[in-house]
Amino acid sequence: MYSFLCDYSEGAHPQILDALNRTNLEQTEGYGMDPHCREAAALIQRHIGREDADIHFFVGGTQTNLTAISAFLRPHHAVIAASTAHIQVHETGAIEATGHKILLKSSADGKLTPAHIQAALDEHEDEHMAKPKLVYISNSTEIGSIYLKAEIEQLSLICRSNGLILYMDGARLGSALSSRENDMTLQDIAGLVDAFYIGGTKNGALMGEALVICREDLKEDFRYHIKQRGGLLAKGRLLGIQFEELFRDHLYFELAAHANRMAGLLNECFLDLNCSFLTHSPSNQIFPILPNEIINKLEEDYAFYRWKKTDDTHSAIRLVTSWATEEKDVQRFIDQLKNYYGK
Amino acid sequence: MYSFLCDYSEGAHPQILDALNRTNLEQTEGYGMDPHCREAAALIQRHIGREDADIHFFVGGTQTNLTAISAFLRPHHAVIAASTAHIQVHETGAIEATGHKILLKSSADGKLTPAHIQAALDEHEDEHMAKPKLVYISNSTEIGSIYLKAEIEQLSLICRSNGLILYMDGARLGSALSSRENDMTLQDIAGLVDAFYIGGTKNGALMGEALVICREDLKEDFRYHIKQRGGLLAKGRLLGIQFEELFRDHLYFELAAHANRMAGLLNECFLDLNCSFLTHSPSNQIFPILPNEIINKLEEDYAFYRWKKTDDTHSAIRLVTSWATEEKDVQRFIDQLKNYYGK
Amino acid sequence: MYSFLCDYSEGAHPQILDALNRTNLEQTEGYGMDPHCREAAALIQRHIGREDADIHFFVGGTQTNLTAISAFLRPHHAVIAASTAHIQVHETGAIEATGHKILLKSSADGKLTPAHIQAALDEHEDEHMAKPKLVYISNSTEIGSIYLKAEIEQLSLICRSNGLILYMDGARLGSALSSRENDMTLQDIAGLVDAFYIGGTKNGALMGEALVICREDLKEDFRYHIKQRGGLLAKGRLLGIQFEELFRDHLYFELAAHANRMAGLLNECFLDLNCSFLTHSPSNQIFPILPNEIINKLEEDYAFYRWKKTDDTHSAIRLVTSWATEEKDVQRFIDQLKNYYGK
Amino acid sequence: MYSFLCDYSEGAHPQILDALNRTNLEQTEGYGMDPHCREAAALIQRHIGREDADIHFFVGGTQTNLTAISAFLRPHHAVIAASTAHIQVHETGAIEATGHKILLKSSADGKLTPAHIQAALDEHEDEHMAKPKLVYISNSTEIGSIYLKAEIEQLSLICRSNGLILYMDGARLGSALSSRENDMTLQDIAGLVDAFYIGGTKNGALMGEALVICREDLKEDFRYHIKQRGGLLAKGRLLGIQFEELFRDHLYFELAAHANRMAGLLNECFLDLNCSFLTHSPSNQIFPILPNEIINKLEEDYAFYRWKKTDDTHSAIRLVTSWATEEKDVQRFIDQLKNYYGK
Repeated sequence: MYSFLCDYSEGAHPQILDALNRTNLEQTEGYGMDPHCREAAALIQRHIGREDADIHFFVGGTQTNLTAISAFLRPHHAVIAASTAHIQVHETGAIEATGHKILLKSSADGKLTPAHIQAALDEHEDEHMAKPKLVYISNSTEIGSIYLKAEIEQLSLICRSNGLILYMDGARLGSALSSRENDMTLQDIAGLVDAFYIGGTKNGALMGEALVICREDLKEDFRYHIKQRGGLLAKGRLLGIQFEELFRDHLYFELAAHANRMAGLLNECFLDLNCSFLTHSPSNQIFPILPNEIINKLEEDYAFYRWKKTDDTHSAIRLVTSWATEEKDVQRFIDQLKNYYGK
Repeated sequence: MYSFLCDYSEGAHPQILDALNRTNLEQTEGYGMDPHCREAAALIQRHIGREDADIHFFVGGTQTNLTAISAFLRPHHAVIAASTAHIQVHETGAIEATGHKILLKSSADGKLTPAHIQAALDEHEDEHMAKPKLVYISNSTEIGSIYLKAEIEQLSLICRSNGLILYMDGARLGSALSSRENDMTLQDIAGLVDAFYIGGTKNGALMGEALVICREDLKEDFRYHIKQRGGLLAKGRLLGIQFEELFRDHLYFELAAHANRMAGLLNECFLDLNCSFLTHSPSNQIFPILPNEIINKLEEDYAFYRWKKTDDTHSAIRLVTSWATEEKDVQRFIDQLKNYYGK
Repeated sequence: MYSFLCDYSEGAHPQILDALNRTNLEQTEGYGMDPHCREAAALIQRHIGREDADIHFFVGGTQTNLTAISAFLRPHHAVIAASTAHIQVHETGAIEATGHKILLKSSADGKLTPAHIQAALDEHEDEHMAKPKLVYISNSTEIGSIYLKAEIEQLSLICRSNGLILYMDGARLGSALSSRENDMTLQDIAGLVDAFYIGGTKNGALMGEALVICREDLKEDFRYHIKQRGGLLAKGRLLGIQFEELFRDHLYFELAAHANRMAGLLNECFLDLNCSFLTHSPSNQIFPILPNEIINKLEEDYAFYRWKKTDDTHSAIRLVTSWATEEKDVQRFIDQLKNYYGK
Repeated sequence: MYSFLCDYSEGAHPQILDALNRTNLEQTEGYGMDPHCREAAALIQRHIGREDADIHFFVGGTQTNLTAISAFLRPHHAVIAASTAHIQVHETGAIEATGHKILLKSSADGKLTPAHIQAALDEHEDEHMAKPKLVYISNSTEIGSIYLKAEIEQLSLICRSNGLILYMDGARLGSALSSRENDMTLQDIAGLVDAFYIGGTKNGALMGEALVICREDLKEDFRYHIKQRGGLLAKGRLLGIQFEELFRDHLYFELAAHANRMAGLLNECFLDLNCSFLTHSPSNQIFPILPNEIINKLEEDYAFYRWKKTDDTHSAIRLVTSWATEEKDVQRFIDQLKNYYGK
């Protein structure tokens, strides 16, 4: 059984594991106050061209989201998000558990637009309603789409002119920025959003997300919030060491590019077979729509997620590739699939 | 500079790191639903003689405490704890951030007694006060003392007869149970408390705590709470793999025994030098009281924590040993110290 | 300027004010432990035929909702509600501020159906999602519609068979139960829902809502929650005294019937003028759709809420009547309106 | 049975009740947006000589405290308070329920000093501890003592130089400011603290507290917080009307002066009888220590609170007087007490 279930099925990229092995017996201070975390932060600052940005390392995405959002907001503030947003759908009400309402906007492609934000602002009349204050976007989104630079610029503009915080969930930011359709750099993002995180867990690390806070007034006392929410890792260097490897050179982008290339091979195959897709995805998650009988056959050898029934005889499935996906396994899947289609 | 600052200065015990290397490219399900977590849970269940206990793995102690306590309590419930308790002193108000008051009891040795609990119950008069519901104890305590079996039995008795939940923070449970003065087993603890956690971070793991829920009515839907608080690790197996190593045989206890033996060597040296101690500690943290001038000299070569000024010329320091502390480093410290004392 | 803005524009019905005057210098215990609260609770218990029900008095509806809902739920539990629900739209995220997500269901008439609840249960897959646990309904709804007995029976059935709590917001329960289309009694409601409140503020009291808890397991320690959320009124008897008047005989229903009758007169007038309505409302709030130019004229003499633009030249307005609305004012409005229509 | 249990045993002062009767059928906007609330706010602003201060009306003290404190703080902030503080002892963990830790300081007379605050600041080392941000004081305190102007000046100084918010709970502020030992005015307080509330419930109102926010940066969006916590009274004018009466002339101070005079008569009697006191109180709560046998006799005719056992044969009791306490009832109590002492 080969798994296309997710991009966190394996451990870490060997180069990262090597670094953990190599540094294992060093004595360092705890809680992220060690040289590795400092160096990793400096590397990221250089990558984004912002030495003034604050970088904080977390173990996972839900924790990053809930800590950042609750630190940035006052109790009466609400979050604007797409109805497909990870914080809405798959974090067990973590944001609400910190006291904040999420205002949902429907979006076919998982992306927010200025019109969504303007609508949320317009619907908010007075103090009988929670006040929209933070805009949550994911790049790539939960359904594989990615934002173009012009789109983020427009979001940035409406946020800044309305006093809103623009926050990007980058659990799969590597895949977005390494996509064939991408026209943005990390540096662009740092200039346009107020805070974002660079996901490591889904791109080659054992675990780890690097939160980047670009806006000065969001930085104050941030480490208190990490500790209070249980996110300050005792052996914090484990995160620093991993991000050193990812950002010393270009490993972060190389791993993501590989994952995208593997997804691209699958994608082309489905196109060849005239399959349609739930949504357009140029990243490492694709959502082809297949006849149920073919899905049944594939499930004998492959693990993946049945995403949505599209009609009585078809369903969309989700296939996710990663840095660890080998081309031979992708090719085997493709061959098998073509065989089922009689090709 | 050699560090006695804490027991999380290094990475993982080599056997644990080997296991992480060995399993790195396995594909497993995420979020702790993998075979390694299942096996590690089974090993712990066997160790404690309770196959009915629920085992959940966390990355760190603060997260374990806040998730368990908030899951077990209703909003009006309060926690009874010693004024030295980690949840009171060093978790940035994490418990209060989930909505619960901590009722403090002063305790010279960091331990709670039935008298403390009775007092908290007596002081609670009616619905104008938060209702005591959970008793938080640490073993070993934050100041190195350990509980004897009879003490836990008495706490268990008063808790059960008053409908209170007895919860043990086991960040340093290995050290407590491997102490020369200990008379308890893991199995004893599982029979006497309602929930406790077995600390891995401070005893040889990269990170990891194993929460054991013994009481049936505390188990329901517990994984929701882990996810909601941001504690469900995507590559959950990382925790399972480590606890497999710690509990397959006796590594967990061997590592703790080593740490205790190293602290014991230091302890004997201070006794030889007629130093007094802030508190009696038979575990891996000791708190000798030294002349400030000697502390100043030691600080040139060793990192440790100045715990408390005891008079104008003396202070208590904290020395912590771990699985990674080498006897040669301890011996060097001892020689140097004796030298400062002119011996 | 005469106001149809809301049903809390005036003070209290004279009979209630008399009772407050009459009892003013009595000395009583505070916090609702007085004879008036006991008597009011007994009167309500008799009205609903449930002497085992617990009755708690609150000052306002938002406070009642947030206290009850947060007391009934564990942290991972979510509320199912219509997208028009007061807790969603007009309570500033009060429920989320206690930590709970609201799962929204669109509903044209403001009412929930078993299909909505089933859908929420079906969408909930596992611990990565908040768990639906409480169903919030309002009667009458926020847009004036009312539930029939059979509808509540069906909701009750699906809730009970799925372990869900059924909670009714009765801010305007008097109007619902006194509506010409109603077929339920207070007693019916007490048998079908798990908790509900009887709104006094919008039906003749200075302020006051009576929460009725019917289900045994929801009653424990409830007064702690009222106090913790700031809702335990020092001079609690003020609420008891008012509900004594409302429920000693039938004042509660008489006042609501009057309000409905006044709304009915307005409604007939709009029907005569061939106006359409945003929604069908047999209660004390109606939502006729009028040409903007007529709305502009009406606004010179009357205060009311512009609810929604329906096309470029028309809008729905909201008119609310109350126990204090006098027929002569309604008649004057009707005459004026007919005059604008040239009739 | 005559009650000295508390200062909220009766309804409202007749002048206040008259105003409620007189205005009963006026139609006004809801939620405190009415002319009475505006006028009451203006009267208070004039009294305190600060037209820039924001005034918000609440129904009760716990709600005022929890709303103000949670609105002013970020999640990692803690409150410094005396261990006798109302928010610590008698509000069911309401502050913690909004997420904030209370740091306690022991104080024999219920008052905080700069030394207490400095100690709290010193104990706070880093982000592993909640950060002290708001200082909560009560005037008069929960045990009847009052602050002198110089004491508040010193607290103000240390707070301002350390970026702390100084907040005064004025549930019994009238009694403090009308005390024979007081040397402060409302205007002084407004200049020295950042926010405080003027208690009406315990000084002649049916219910009502007026929160005064003096510091600019604490004002933003405050009404959202009132609504979110359930404190925005639908018929908000009820509070405005009452504070109009209290502050149009000097009723607020006259009522408090009467209560103090009644307590003073009792106090003198205990002094005549050579009783000692738990604490020095020049306000409307006194705590004499009496032989238990005399307490038993008094309890046959009077209700009061047994505060604390002081030795095997004596206890401190609490006697509270109010605007409604009549001199004849005080005299009867004094005569009876003297009689028990054989005088």
